[in-house]
Amino acid sequence: MKIAIISVTDKGKSLSQKLKNILDKDSTVILTDIYYKNVKKSMPILFDKYDAIIAIMASGILIRSIAPLINSKITDPAILNMDENGKYVISVLSGHMGGANKLTVKIANLINSEAIITTATDVNHKLGIDTIANDLFLDIKNPQSIVNFNKAILKDKKIIIQTNDKFIEDYISKNTLEINLLIENNNNNLKQDEIIVVCNDTILKLHKRKIVVGIGCRRNKSSKDILTAIEQSLRDLNLPLSRIDLLTSAEIKKDEKGLLELSEKLNIPIHFVELDKLKLFKSDIVQESEFVKSKFGIIGVCEPSALISAGFDSQLIYKKTVYDGVTISIAVSKKEIN
Amino acid sequence: MKIAIISVTDKGKSLSQKLKNILDKDSTVILTDIYYKNVKKSMPILFDKYDAIIAIMASGILIRSIAPLINSKITDPAILNMDENGKYVISVLSGHMGGANKLTVKIANLINSEAIITTATDVNHKLGIDTIANDLFLDIKNPQSIVNFNKAILKDKKIIIQTNDKFIEDYISKNTLEINLLIENNNNNLKQDEIIVVCNDTILKLHKRKIVVGIGCRRNKSSKDILTAIEQSLRDLNLPLSRIDLLTSAEIKKDEKGLLELSEKLNIPIHFVELDKLKLFKSDIVQESEFVKSKFGIIGVCEPSALISAGFDSQLIYKKTVYDGVTISIAVSKKEIN
Repeated sequence: MKIAIISVTDKGKSLSQKLKNILDKDSTVILTDIYYKNVKKSMPILFDKYDAIIAIMASGILIRSIAPLINSKITDPAILNMDENGKYVISVLSGHMGGANKLTVKIANLINSEAIITTATDVNHKLGIDTIANDLFLDIKNPQSIVNFNKAILKDKKIIIQTNDKFIEDYISKNTLEINLLIENNNNNLKQDEIIVVCNDTILKLHKRKIVVGIGCRRNKSSKDILTAIEQSLRDLNLPLSRIDLLTSAEIKKDEKGLLELSEKLNIPIHFVELDKLKLFKSDIVQESEFVKSKFGIIGVCEPSALISAGFDSQLIYKKTVYDGVTISIAVSKKEIN
Repeated sequence: MKIAIISVTDKGKSLSQKLKNILDKDSTVILTDIYYKNVKKSMPILFDKYDAIIAIMASGILIRSIAPLINSKITDPAILNMDENGKYVISVLSGHMGGANKLTVKIANLINSEAIITTATDVNHKLGIDTIANDLFLDIKNPQSIVNFNKAILKDKKIIIQTNDKFIEDYISKNTLEINLLIENNNNNLKQDEIIVVCNDTILKLHKRKIVVGIGCRRNKSSKDILTAIEQSLRDLNLPLSRIDLLTSAEIKKDEKGLLELSEKLNIPIHFVELDKLKLFKSDIVQESEFVKSKFGIIGVCEPSALISAGFDSQLIYKKTVYDGVTISIAVSKKEIN
């Protein structure tokens, strides 16, 4: 998630910096940029460039500046509003699909303020289908039907979820306590990466986006150490090992025993990205490594490998994080529908 | 203040009705109408017709529906957002000029929920000039300068307020505790209905809108009883007797001793509206009286008299309220700038 924080007063500016310092330590926050004043001018740029905008200002200023930019709940960024004293964090726009509600709760916890969320499924402790999809990196093939499903959830209509994935089954069971739910996990016609949600005569089709783990490591790191680092990253993202589709690193690591062993042990393929491809790779979100750059002429190993291997328009969901000689970064394949 | 409440779920609908029942008992709330579903279709109508819209729905639905309608902080209605459980009341738009912040606090108190306000002057317990103007029914002649003044207040710049009105002087002193303020009350060049606010080289000019009290009463009511009723109404509006510019009633009351005596005692003129004018008067907010209608062919006494006497585009700020044989209603003259 790429986040912009924008404020208009001196107090708001201090709060922006405080928030950035905290978010920079969070591996699931890829980038946090600070903006100050010029709200009307900056907002169109922020709307395009970031996944979430935290606006520290009067609600009226925020709403007036985003009004002409609002387009669709499927593509608009998450919009959060805070007062300059940081007493409240309000989830304003794209609560579910854009992840505004989740980010609101996270920030409220980080700076000890109050999370204000108005979406009906949340205030009634029922998770909407769009929240579940977002949490689990699932793509919804027909997002226009979401509203019907969430209405059905609120009215306690029977929802049937078909999945062959034990983790997804458990996650949904645990997080939708008050939903009238039936999970079917013995459907042989279902593809492994497919989840079907049925309510009355409407069907919602979801499929798992591909998860690619990029790895960099010092020579002779054991497969056990690398696995420990990966497991920690997955815990931060609340994903199971079984969701990993691919491990990846740079060509220069293709003989690294620990990596090859791990791939075999986990029964997950590993792909080593060619040096030529890495040399051509450009991105403004990747953290550059001076050492790797001077030695191999590439800007980094784990982040570029993950993004290249996850394919065109893939997205970083876990930035380069160092675990005792191992660096981990995780990318997810692009959303099919936008 | 005319209020629309709109909701989209069953729970929200119940909350709408509960709120309406409470607001109907408040004499300063002229009208409360309930709307259900069809948010996108209804919103343009509500935006034009009401002073405040209370939206019980997910923030995202609300923001997406008002985005194309937002125009200016001087004319847009107050927009409030609530979750369907009534846990929060959020001041979303037109916090100061539209009175959203004040209404937010009022409703939060009425139904025991939490008021969420993000405007910087409020979160720092400093009243903005626009709030003061709204509270005291003052017209701001150059509203485009408000933003500079409120910024100056936040930066603790010296603000000079010139007024010859003791009540306004006291109100500002009491409600702007943390503002660096100097009140000048001995300026002979100042007109009685004028208030001047100065900061650095900028001047904000305000003037008092005219306050007209419409009175109906049973025959032979004493001036003391009528005064008691008026004083109670003014308390509800937080206005002093000295702010009344005119008393008014219907022509049929022109010999009513109590009214004539009161006008003399208070040294406030009284105007009796001609029956012909009252017969022509039409309004969808006035509460019709069957008795008066059958006897004189007019829809009412105190509300129509107040609105007619306060002039074209005047506004009801206190609906017909009965005090033991006396009915009181209060109107304010139109805003000069819109």
